Amino acid sequence: MFDSGVGGLTVLSEIRDRMPFENTVYFGDTARVPYGVRDLTEVRWFAYEIIRYLTRLNVKLVVIACNTATAAALKTAQRSFDVPIIGVIEPGARAATFEAQNRRVGVLATEATVRSRAYAKAISNIDAGIRVREQACPEFVPLIERGITEGPELESAAEVYLRPLMEDPVGAVILGCTHYPLISATINRILGPEVRLISSAGQTALEVGRILSRRGYLRRPTHAEDFGSPVYVCSGDPQEFAALGSRFLDEEIEAVAPAEVGSRRSDAPLLY
Amino acid sequence: MFDSGVGGLTVLSEIRDRMPFENTVYFGDTARVPYGVRDLTEVRWFAYEIIRYLTRLNVKLVVIACNTATAAALKTAQRSFDVPIIGVIEPGARAATFEAQNRRVGVLATEATVRSRAYAKAISNIDAGIRVREQACPEFVPLIERGITEGPELESAAEVYLRPLMEDPVGAVILGCTHYPLISATINRILGPEVRLISSAGQTALEVGRILSRRGYLRRPTHAEDFGSPVYVCSGDPQEFAALGSRFLDEEIEAVAPAEVGSRRSDAPLLY
Repeated sequence: MFDSGVGGLTVLSEIRDRMPFENTVYFGDTARVPYGVRDLTEVRWFAYEIIRYLTRLNVKLVVIACNTATAAALKTAQRSFDVPIIGVIEPGARAATFEAQNRRVGVLATEATVRSRAYAKAISNIDAGIRVREQACPEFVPLIERGITEGPELESAAEVYLRPLMEDPVGAVILGCTHYPLISATINRILGPEVRLISSAGQTALEVGRILSRRGYLRRPTHAEDFGSPVYVCSGDPQEFAALGSRFLDEEIEAVAPAEVGSRRSDAPLLY
Repeated sequence: MFDSGVGGLTVLSEIRDRMPFENTVYFGDTARVPYGVRDLTEVRWFAYEIIRYLTRLNVKLVVIACNTATAAALKTAQRSFDVPIIGVIEPGARAATFEAQNRRVGVLATEATVRSRAYAKAISNIDAGIRVREQACPEFVPLIERGITEGPELESAAEVYLRPLMEDPVGAVILGCTHYPLISATINRILGPEVRLISSAGQTALEVGRILSRRGYLRRPTHAEDFGSPVYVCSGDPQEFAALGSRFLDEEIEAVAPAEVGSRRSDAPLLY
């Protein structure tokens, strides 16, 4: 799996909770984060470069654990590679169509994801009659990356973003950014218990489990403690990745392998 | 739920097996069967007329139990009516993406459904890298309606239709017509145990169950024998509907109410 940075680690965390015997490789493209401000064609090129890297490790499934890269590259990558590839948008969209009793769904996401309308399109593919209200939340990612996941500063930002979803009440709200599971308690408290909160990260992990089990791809452990090992690779500073990433994973990241992207330097692993 | 004729009763049969406490209304538009040869705009008009009829009975969910009507009317009907509406294509397509280990899927359907490319599109929405081979099987429906669901005549037709799916082997085959569950044993035998056979009827019933249970819509029986009652309505000859339909439902159809479609006659229920 890969993401532009550390956000996708919330998806990895859910996968490791549910499928502890699987071996995983997480690639954080921290040298080029954030993807949201870049041209979609450039993001697609980055995604292809990283998927090629992952396929050389003989992975059985690739998760694009990044909303922007999913919107930019999922469909064309599925056509270009033999390995099955899933993104983070469709699983959350699908869960929302089930949960939204009043057929109104809210989506909280970054500006780039909202601009792409990817969630609205995915929901319309399943039930075109569901009304979708997408809300960009530009302050959330900077706050979360500064370690602010509760308290008055987050709450006042959240209240502004959530107001439109409460005035014309939605039945379900999708956390449409991999960073947001870290602030789900605050969002949940403001929205109240009537609104179903759907984590794209959690739903994507469920989808990974469904695909691996239905296709008979789940790893068979040889004994009860034979847990899978997680490998971490990043294109930026490994120390920074480990420090910031441990908060998203809720688990200590001990070793991070460096990877060179976008150029052919001889002192680093090559991506192509 | 509704269909152009009796084929959708295989979907009803699966729904009644899984959710015996639900009350159901089945509308067979037998005065205008088959839909497959008609213009899509005309089929959409028929679908709207029947959905209006069903919504006046205060149904909580509408199933378009007909591949042609799903392709013609699902998306626009979802936008036009308050009641949730599902079709028979997406559930089968989704199951196939899970089951096809080699990412090759075959679809058996009528000529109209194959022409609409509805299954290929629905599969591509989930995994654009899956190769879909759609096979029109024009002889199946007439054979099944004559009561021929096994034997040499059916087998020789099936062998011709299935050959292309076996030469470039698919991992899963969708029975993309509501009539085909009646001949699944023959198809299964020819394809062999390696190929997963997916019934659109069965998958649609599973989807109905998921929606009703997640939204809290399942009927609560007052006692163990409080089974839901099925109501049958058709626009053609009620006796013919009962006789042919009983085979598709695998259960005796006792009473069929007549309904007038497309004109305002005073001696029959009006649809608009």
